[in-house]
Amino acid sequence: MVQVTAPVVIALDAMGGDRAPHIVVRGAELARERFPDVHFLMFGDEAKISPLLAKYEALAAVTTLRHSDGVILNEDKPSTALRGGRNSSMRHAIDAVSAGEASAVISAGNTGALMAIAKFVLKTLPGIDRPAICGFVPTARGEAAMLDLGANVQCNAQNLVQFAVMGEVFARTVLNLDRPIIGLLNVGVEDLKGVEEVKEAATILRAIDLPIEFKGFIEGTDIAAGTVDVVVTDGFTGNVALKTAEGIVRLYAGFLREAFRADFMSKLGYLFAKRQIEKLRERIDPRQYNGAMLLGLNGIVVKSHGGADALGFANAIGVGVDMVLHGFMEKMTQDFASLGTVEEAQLREATGP
Amino acid sequence: MVQVTAPVVIALDAMGGDRAPHIVVRGAELARERFPDVHFLMFGDEAKISPLLAKYEALAAVTTLRHSDGVILNEDKPSTALRGGRNSSMRHAIDAVSAGEASAVISAGNTGALMAIAKFVLKTLPGIDRPAICGFVPTARGEAAMLDLGANVQCNAQNLVQFAVMGEVFARTVLNLDRPIIGLLNVGVEDLKGVEEVKEAATILRAIDLPIEFKGFIEGTDIAAGTVDVVVTDGFTGNVALKTAEGIVRLYAGFLREAFRADFMSKLGYLFAKRQIEKLRERIDPRQYNGAMLLGLNGIVVKSHGGADALGFANAIGVGVDMVLHGFMEKMTQDFASLGTVEEAQLREATGP
Repeated sequence: MVQVTAPVVIALDAMGGDRAPHIVVRGAELARERFPDVHFLMFGDEAKISPLLAKYEALAAVTTLRHSDGVILNEDKPSTALRGGRNSSMRHAIDAVSAGEASAVISAGNTGALMAIAKFVLKTLPGIDRPAICGFVPTARGEAAMLDLGANVQCNAQNLVQFAVMGEVFARTVLNLDRPIIGLLNVGVEDLKGVEEVKEAATILRAIDLPIEFKGFIEGTDIAAGTVDVVVTDGFTGNVALKTAEGIVRLYAGFLREAFRADFMSKLGYLFAKRQIEKLRERIDPRQYNGAMLLGLNGIVVKSHGGADALGFANAIGVGVDMVLHGFMEKMTQDFASLGTVEEAQLREATGP
Repeated sequence: MVQVTAPVVIALDAMGGDRAPHIVVRGAELARERFPDVHFLMFGDEAKISPLLAKYEALAAVTTLRHSDGVILNEDKPSTALRGGRNSSMRHAIDAVSAGEASAVISAGNTGALMAIAKFVLKTLPGIDRPAICGFVPTARGEAAMLDLGANVQCNAQNLVQFAVMGEVFARTVLNLDRPIIGLLNVGVEDLKGVEEVKEAATILRAIDLPIEFKGFIEGTDIAAGTVDVVVTDGFTGNVALKTAEGIVRLYAGFLREAFRADFMSKLGYLFAKRQIEKLRERIDPRQYNGAMLLGLNGIVVKSHGGADALGFANAIGVGVDMVLHGFMEKMTQDFASLGTVEEAQLREATGP
């Protein structure tokens, strides 16, 4: 008998993002070239998307387009999007994952709405109180995963511990690491520093006998240094830190551009060094790190940057496909189920009656 | 009659920092070249400092050296330093400001100890509950002040409001701005986002009729963009954000170095562009931004980075001298006294009975 493997189906919210649906269709085409076996289930305004799809024959052949009337706007509150967005492309794309029609959903739309709808439709995994947003950051050793990037502005110790375990499964699965090292972001590496929740989370992570490599506290400078593979923090700090770094990278890239345009000699220098400078630009290209994962849900949800271009969106699709192909959901469910039991028992021991 | 102006006297903790006292003495010499009228009151191990001072005749002529037996170590807890450090160079240098012998104190030693001793000896200014650490950050428009950078890991709305006012006086005095713009760091610019303390601080800053330019919420990317002149945040977020940015700058500087060494053409390119690249390096040199101010105290206290070299330490001295020459303490005391009254009355109005 011939074994037939069903293709991986990815649901796309074609109306999310600053330049939707153009960027979504072009991003899907780029992703198709990299993953020829993937099928797409695209949701959005048929009148706008059909003419775009018509330009890419190969993409059209692996894409099913389903019309959705509604669009969730960037300025919509999560609660409004949840109540009023039942007919939106975002909601339909998430529903497709819930119905088992697709293995992952990618959207460049409103993050708060995506999280609210995904939580409502897909629910969180057993053992997880709150899902978190996880992203990639460049480091001296490659890249690290960092969470939470803004889903939970206030976190208790238990939330941070769950983020650590979620991040560990993610790094093991998607970054393909045997024993990812986990660090808890703090204002110093000494035990006495930091806010109570962070100190308590560290105590729990040290006390419970999970099979994870907990490094302890790390500082902001440790992120880019690549001291750990998973950076755990609350959503307020994580969001601010990442965006601060993003801003400073943009500033310095501008300074570098100015330097190469400043005089004749530096322009000449640029011509000689061009190949390496272009390589450098690719290396630090933020589009490479596009694609933030909503972890802790009963389904794979990837958020692309709203301003991403086609290449950025294709990378976000790539992250979703990777998670599906590496069996992220299965590992997450298994590990959390078994870890949950261990954790509970040991937590009781560690924290006393 | 001839008017005699007393020279500005700066107290130096000569034993603080990774390479003390060498760096402190050499930094003082660099600062002396820039501020020939400044006198130094140096505290530390006479046997070690005297031979160093002997090398710089002009510096020795404007320096009074006072022996201190004790040294506060980097690993000392603030409480230990406070109790056991009565004979330390750091304590003596702060005492000199309290006694009116010096107008400012500069130390590259243990930050927690410096804050604890300075708070104990100098006390906070009326109207200020908690002092904050304020630093400079590079922006597309020059530089901005940012606080708190780690003195207070947990802040309530009132603390954040006070930081905003302290930062405003600082930017007006030291950055020489007529009407500095203040921003409150958050995870989004919409009113509904963020933690309660931050939202409440914004409500107060909008309600009270202080003569400050309050921009509202800003995001991490706004810092380097130069959207505001003063960035206000709690000490946990501020510390992590700044160190994260520092780490990423170091990483990308390393990438740039690699790019210029990668092949013959890029090495050649570097030779042509060298002058501009060196200029760029100076522009982004973290030593330029060395010197963090402990604001809200009854005296000027500047903390240099522990790993700073002589140029970095000289810049930290320069910040202290600038604050003295621009009458920072007088403005701070005046403004907080009058603002305090306004604030109290209007706060009652804004928040109701």
